[in-house]
Amino acid sequence: MTSGDCPLCALDAAEALWANDQCFVISAEIAGVGTICRVVWREHIREMSALDAAARGAFMDVVFGVEAVLRTLARPAKINLASLGNLVPHLHWHVIPRYLDDAHFPDAIWAPARREAPARSLKDAVLRAALEAGLGG
Amino acid sequence: MTSGDCPLCALDAAEALWANDQCFVISAEIAGVGTICRVVWREHIREMSALDAAARGAFMDVVFGVEAVLRTLARPAKINLASLGNLVPHLHWHVIPRYLDDAHFPDAIWAPARREAPARSLKDAVLRAALEAGLGG
Repeated sequence: MTSGDCPLCALDAAEALWANDQCFVISAEIAGVGTICRVVWREHIREMSALDAAARGAFMDVVFGVEAVLRTLARPAKINLASLGNLVPHLHWHVIPRYLDDAHFPDAIWAPARREAPARSLKDAVLRAALEAGLGG
Repeated sequence: MTSGDCPLCALDAAEALWANDQCFVISAEIAGVGTICRVVWREHIREMSALDAAARGAFMDVVFGVEAVLRTLARPAKINLASLGNLVPHLHWHVIPRYLDDAHFPDAIWAPARREAPARSLKDAVLRAALEAGLGG
């Protein structure tokens, strides 16, 4: 996959929940889990170790900042962090609030569901305000 | 789970493939995938955002250093990074070399297997030498 056919390159960072010059934050609804955030690097890069140390550090500061915001906002039992990119090899981090009664707990959200889960959703407006307060505007 | 009954607290860092004062690296064999590395924080801490910025940065430098070592040594199609800890809430990162013909690709390794995979294994002695060369002795 090149940047020409990459769905993350096609996203408009201006519509993100939060953005800086290097990366932006979007939300996604995962069935049986609820709202998660993704932190997407703007440039089409495959691996974290392909970034220089300063860029990596700045990227992870945002990832951990989003984690802190979600811990406060959603009070999860645990946060899961993952950078996979097997289907879309453009650096992006999943920041996933987990709950004892979500569909997959304690397995990863990619494992088969163990149970029906209550609906959980964070509104974009609430997330946007919390990200701006937590990460800076 | 407290540090008293935590299996990661019970590990002896002196037997790790690589260690510094803050964290250590071990290997694991995952069926259908092969050898992965885990980077384990020594202290029993649940979440990355509970560490201060300097500790987080030092931890991630090791994680990304292990990624770079595995990219060179194993030539994977992609690296997957994950900090889950739902079962064992003691900070540890999975650094997972992925291959087009591994049992789960392009899904996460926690998803159901799609195929039989060839055996792939990295010897601890080889990993140990590569980690020492890549991360410092």
